[in-house]
Amino acid sequence: MPVYVVGHKIPDSDSICGAIALAHLRNQIGEASVATRLGELSPETAFILEKFGFDAPEFKTSYAGEEVYIVDHSELTQAPDDIAQATIVGIVDHHKLGDLTTSTPLECWIRPVGCSNTIIKMMYDFYNVEISKEMAGIMLCAILSDTVIFKSPTCTTADIKCVEALAEIAGIEDFKALGMEMFKVKSAVEGTPARDLVMRDFKDFNMNGNLVGIGQLEVIDLAVFDEIKAELEADIAALKAEGNRHSVLLLLTDIMKEGSELLIISDELAKIESAYSCKSEDNKVWLDGVLSRKKQVVPPLQDVFA
Amino acid sequence: MPVYVVGHKIPDSDSICGAIALAHLRNQIGEASVATRLGELSPETAFILEKFGFDAPEFKTSYAGEEVYIVDHSELTQAPDDIAQATIVGIVDHHKLGDLTTSTPLECWIRPVGCSNTIIKMMYDFYNVEISKEMAGIMLCAILSDTVIFKSPTCTTADIKCVEALAEIAGIEDFKALGMEMFKVKSAVEGTPARDLVMRDFKDFNMNGNLVGIGQLEVIDLAVFDEIKAELEADIAALKAEGNRHSVLLLLTDIMKEGSELLIISDELAKIESAYSCKSEDNKVWLDGVLSRKKQVVPPLQDVFA
Repeated sequence: MPVYVVGHKIPDSDSICGAIALAHLRNQIGEASVATRLGELSPETAFILEKFGFDAPEFKTSYAGEEVYIVDHSELTQAPDDIAQATIVGIVDHHKLGDLTTSTPLECWIRPVGCSNTIIKMMYDFYNVEISKEMAGIMLCAILSDTVIFKSPTCTTADIKCVEALAEIAGIEDFKALGMEMFKVKSAVEGTPARDLVMRDFKDFNMNGNLVGIGQLEVIDLAVFDEIKAELEADIAALKAEGNRHSVLLLLTDIMKEGSELLIISDELAKIESAYSCKSEDNKVWLDGVLSRKKQVVPPLQDVFA
Repeated sequence: MPVYVVGHKIPDSDSICGAIALAHLRNQIGEASVATRLGELSPETAFILEKFGFDAPEFKTSYAGEEVYIVDHSELTQAPDDIAQATIVGIVDHHKLGDLTTSTPLECWIRPVGCSNTIIKMMYDFYNVEISKEMAGIMLCAILSDTVIFKSPTCTTADIKCVEALAEIAGIEDFKALGMEMFKVKSAVEGTPARDLVMRDFKDFNMNGNLVGIGQLEVIDLAVFDEIKAELEADIAALKAEGNRHSVLLLLTDIMKEGSELLIISDELAKIESAYSCKSEDNKVWLDGVLSRKKQVVPPLQDVFA
């Protein structure tokens, strides 16, 4: 019986490329593994897999009775619904330590770096397994995505060195151009229903008993949202009601201006504002320099809910 | 401000030697660190530190506002009482994933091996930091203790290779003899009050909302308990009442016969028996082949409480 290697719900490129790269590594060291996914590919991830010739991991939502290796999170809300009936054999992650627990010992490769694929590259090095050109390509793209081409405050020296090493393997001379190409794909939002956009990169967090959903859309020019912002606002209000959430936040991130417009729907608007020491207008506020949900948005919120 | 490197409450040799070894490693790589402890040294640990010339880590129970690196567990019940007011920067552990969570990214070096010190040796290798003869001595002793000189089912190839490498560094030819010497120290129970014995290696677990305390005494001949078993039984009954626990279990482990006598005081005796498919007599039962609390005692219990 193989171990299923799976990222979080509403998978991003790190979750998908990480599952593929880690399943391959594990197969090379004799641990039969299959990469799976909990949701649809984003346009960005589809672009990456197509570019380097990989199929999407198998879509699989139920893991009861199976062995699972978790990628890119350690949160119950982001894991398969029946994770409590599965055996978690490992976790590779770069976020805060969440509320997943196990009843047996496991391995955790968790590091405060910008991307799970940076850690997976360390695992390839640890096990001394060769990385193919194509695999290096998808791992590199995942890191450029998570670190916003090194602009995010989550980016570490380890991520940069890792991208440089992977670019060498993949034979990619201008990886920053590849990163911009990827973010252009990500910025094509016209014609997409509001719900699809909001859910493209959306994570639920359990904040001291309160369910808080936080979405993020990273684009190269916020002007793409001008026509649809009202729809986005209506949609996060609907999402809040549907999911019985305390709050739903949507970050519209401008990777060139290096900041985010935050849209807020909350039972306690003042609490959210206090987390970021800001005052919103019409439930919106520009947060200069804020690029990272993980490092700049979740921790202050966690603190005000503590 | 240094990072405090600290093991679990009622520290065993792995927690103490691990804190010393990891704090030293972190200082070598430029991360100012201080080893601390949450409780008294066991006779075994005192023997190890004395033998290799180390002082006990500083006794420190409060960590509010400090940065902490956790060694040998990931459980709230085993961590400092005010851990929620501290920042956990890392965890090195070899147990099941517990209920500690963080609000910021951290590093976790968690592996399903027999001892935290085996993982700390991997960390020395990763950072390419030299291990002194004396440090190798205490790390090796911690691994021999946790793996019951390789007899425990928790012992892995990695632990054995690690002990062999450390023995080479420490210049110890017969490490098994050293292990037996250590277990002889551990077996000297006469004259020690029952409570001190029960608490010598005692851990509380949150089993689906029920507090279950599990102690273990490892000796080279169970006959040492003949005169004091009634006192031990009375004491775990008192402990159960004092701590409002659902159950208290005490494992009297015979490392030569390779099994444990389990003493049970519980609100639901039948539930405990069902976990180990056994029938107790006078709240006692011999569990043949059971040496490991972590691998053979906690998981089946976790399952019946799930």
